[in-house]
Amino acid sequence: MSTGWFRRRFLPGGPLPAPRPPGPRASPVPYRRPRFLRGSGSSSGAADASRRPDARPVRSPARGRTLPWNAGYAEIINAEKSEFNEDQAACGKLCIRRCEFGAEEDQEWLTLCPEELLTGHYWALFDGHGGPAAAILAANTLHSCLRRQLEAVVEGVVATQPPMHLSGCCICPSDPQFVEEKGIRAEDLVIGALESAFQECDEVIGRELEASGQVGGCTALVAVSLQGKLYVANAGDSRAILVRKDEIRPLSSEFTPETERQRIQQLAFVYPELLAGEFTRLEFPRRLKGDDLGQKVLFRDHHMSGWSYKLVEKSDLKYPLIHGQGKQARLLGTLAVSRGLGDHQLRVLDTNIQLKPFLLSIPQVTVLDMDQLELQEDDVVVMATDGLWDVLSNEQVAWLVRSFLPRNREDPHRFLELAQMLIHSTQGKNDGPTGEELVSYDDVSVFVIPLHSQGQGNSGQ
Amino acid sequence: MSTGWFRRRFLPGGPLPAPRPPGPRASPVPYRRPRFLRGSGSSSGAADASRRPDARPVRSPARGRTLPWNAGYAEIINAEKSEFNEDQAACGKLCIRRCEFGAEEDQEWLTLCPEELLTGHYWALFDGHGGPAAAILAANTLHSCLRRQLEAVVEGVVATQPPMHLSGCCICPSDPQFVEEKGIRAEDLVIGALESAFQECDEVIGRELEASGQVGGCTALVAVSLQGKLYVANAGDSRAILVRKDEIRPLSSEFTPETERQRIQQLAFVYPELLAGEFTRLEFPRRLKGDDLGQKVLFRDHHMSGWSYKLVEKSDLKYPLIHGQGKQARLLGTLAVSRGLGDHQLRVLDTNIQLKPFLLSIPQVTVLDMDQLELQEDDVVVMATDGLWDVLSNEQVAWLVRSFLPRNREDPHRFLELAQMLIHSTQGKNDGPTGEELVSYDDVSVFVIPLHSQGQGNSGQ
Repeated sequence: MSTGWFRRRFLPGGPLPAPRPPGPRASPVPYRRPRFLRGSGSSSGAADASRRPDARPVRSPARGRTLPWNAGYAEIINAEKSEFNEDQAACGKLCIRRCEFGAEEDQEWLTLCPEELLTGHYWALFDGHGGPAAAILAANTLHSCLRRQLEAVVEGVVATQPPMHLSGCCICPSDPQFVEEKGIRAEDLVIGALESAFQECDEVIGRELEASGQVGGCTALVAVSLQGKLYVANAGDSRAILVRKDEIRPLSSEFTPETERQRIQQLAFVYPELLAGEFTRLEFPRRLKGDDLGQKVLFRDHHMSGWSYKLVEKSDLKYPLIHGQGKQARLLGTLAVSRGLGDHQLRVLDTNIQLKPFLLSIPQVTVLDMDQLELQEDDVVVMATDGLWDVLSNEQVAWLVRSFLPRNREDPHRFLELAQMLIHSTQGKNDGPTGEELVSYDDVSVFVIPLHSQGQGNSGQ
Repeated sequence: MSTGWFRRRFLPGGPLPAPRPPGPRASPVPYRRPRFLRGSGSSSGAADASRRPDARPVRSPARGRTLPWNAGYAEIINAEKSEFNEDQAACGKLCIRRCEFGAEEDQEWLTLCPEELLTGHYWALFDGHGGPAAAILAANTLHSCLRRQLEAVVEGVVATQPPMHLSGCCICPSDPQFVEEKGIRAEDLVIGALESAFQECDEVIGRELEASGQVGGCTALVAVSLQGKLYVANAGDSRAILVRKDEIRPLSSEFTPETERQRIQQLAFVYPELLAGEFTRLEFPRRLKGDDLGQKVLFRDHHMSGWSYKLVEKSDLKYPLIHGQGKQARLLGTLAVSRGLGDHQLRVLDTNIQLKPFLLSIPQVTVLDMDQLELQEDDVVVMATDGLWDVLSNEQVAWLVRSFLPRNREDPHRFLELAQMLIHSTQGKNDGPTGEELVSYDDVSVFVIPLHSQGQGNSGQ
């Protein structure tokens, strides 16, 4: 992505985009549930599901189908919003082959005998909005983007220390020392590959949706195991946590208009054209009105962590760039998340103001070094879309995990059953630790990934 | 600060700045040491100090002069660099008066009987570069800026909850609820006032230095006590830590080209004009050269936390925007810090490329709630310029604090002596916990602020 591209794409006065070549429009992305749910009998399709929350079926993989690491999965469709489940999921084995950068004449030979250099596993959740298409495309595509990005750097990933030059040749004798001083490790290449894969997938989704005339976007939460480490990459408001006997460790943080306020206000400060005179980039405790003119009211700008007072002028009465609190917070009155994939065509209702320049497709990546953890039998990672975390806290989820797993160690399906139980707990059907019964009316999808069994030959999907 | 201002000030093609009105140039900022050192006998002036590090005098306030909270202070001039000590310090009592925003006819009366509404204390360290002028101006000015900024919002600071409108009038009945939902507390107003004060002080320094034809900049580390809380605001590479019997808590983090890489690269991505075609914004493990052309080498761009490989092109051979590691890291080959005050005129040697657009004057503020701490007699905050932290780790400083204070509880000057001892430890004169003897050749200034005695009537300066 270059500055020039950004300016041409989003700012007025740039050259018009080339017209789409004439020809038939690509067919729309077909709706589907995750591949690994095939053959699961509980419900044949979302359209059959009753709209009453207490009657909605919870779906899980069929008992005979084992997911990577014997992970558990369960999902439920939203109660009211649409006939489609906008959440999607994917998981499987990642096979990274060697891809040498030799002379051109070598390359054909190399593709004839690809060598599997590294294997890992992959679990992903996508929470769609504006239709299911972007989440389906992400579930179909992101793992391929990641495999490609990892293959492009795999020589560095398997080296003791990533070489300065991917070819391995040493142009300057102290190159290893420079790399050492920067503290660059193999895991930094995996983080870089995840960052690039999210970007690449975002571009694919943009092209595919434009070609088929569809719209929409999705969040993405991905866990990848590689060489004894678990990488969690998050763009959006899903969440992953590690639950152990004595520890709850967040493995992701949420990206919303509230948590990314300063980044978003900063962009509007640099490029005020993006607001087209319709929005104010300043934050106030509520939307201002005529009576506030001439008063000094609480406000925050892009450079402020604290609050101050400003004299209200007419331009402060515009609709705020970020408005509302908590789950109600919206970017440009439109979107509840600030990172994710897709949304290339999304505009503020009845205007030409684009959301995309304010959205990031780059994930934040955290790394769990499993070799350092002395893992116990009931240690799991719980990954879920926001529908779960809206009604259950980290502590409540950990309480449910710790109540369920030790009592069910003999059950080979316990991680699947735990995933189902977590979903039921969002429907007011289980007694939680507090006795409160919050009900989620959103789509909810959950992976429970046991860490103790890692590498024990569950080959997955 | 508006976007328009930023574009006019820093980007080519904007209107030229108005010529300075003719007239005599203001006189240069006179060199001085902190006011509270007056009468301290150990050394009459920096120019007298020997250039050999083992002979340099450590200066502290005279024994009869008590600093706020009986804090200790000591400083030493650099060994080699200049005849001036580029560090500066200030401390004193902060008196915040009421400043009502009533009808104009009321205002004169109000200024006739200013009411002291809130008192606090203030300690500050400034580490200058490019001459002592900016640090001296900051030491003379920042506390006044802070007092002014706090007076502008003091009604909100003393309220149980800051009101939506500073006047206290309630335009919308649920205004208190909006403020509550945003979680806005009195301390957020103090944080906002610190942020604004740093900005205001930066502007003052820019004007004063331009008027007197001087140059330079400085870092700023400020501690402010107010209503049972200690606020630590930092812009630069000084550091404050809390040392208790069983705890070492960092109260600031350093802002350098390395720690702020992504922010700085992001600005160069948005405004490539700022690099004038002379620098590359990409980060490589070392500066690239001709032999690297056509190779795939390790790199990072603004959106990346991880590393990846890229094919080297000719433009990658330019000098890097951020270059070097650790203490050697430089912004545009020139500056070792990325936040601070001043530097309005600073340009890359022999070019017209300005440093200022990449520098932030905004501090990061952390808040220590002293009422929650159950403070013990030997609990202190140690604030020091980077000369100390270059040779002593947080753990080494804590070891020295914990070795010294319990043995000297009867000594009324123990915090002053601890500050002197910390300085001596940077000169290879004390046996530290490791026995290693690193020597600092930089200016070093230290405050030791005891927390247990807070509010016990030490009125200060």
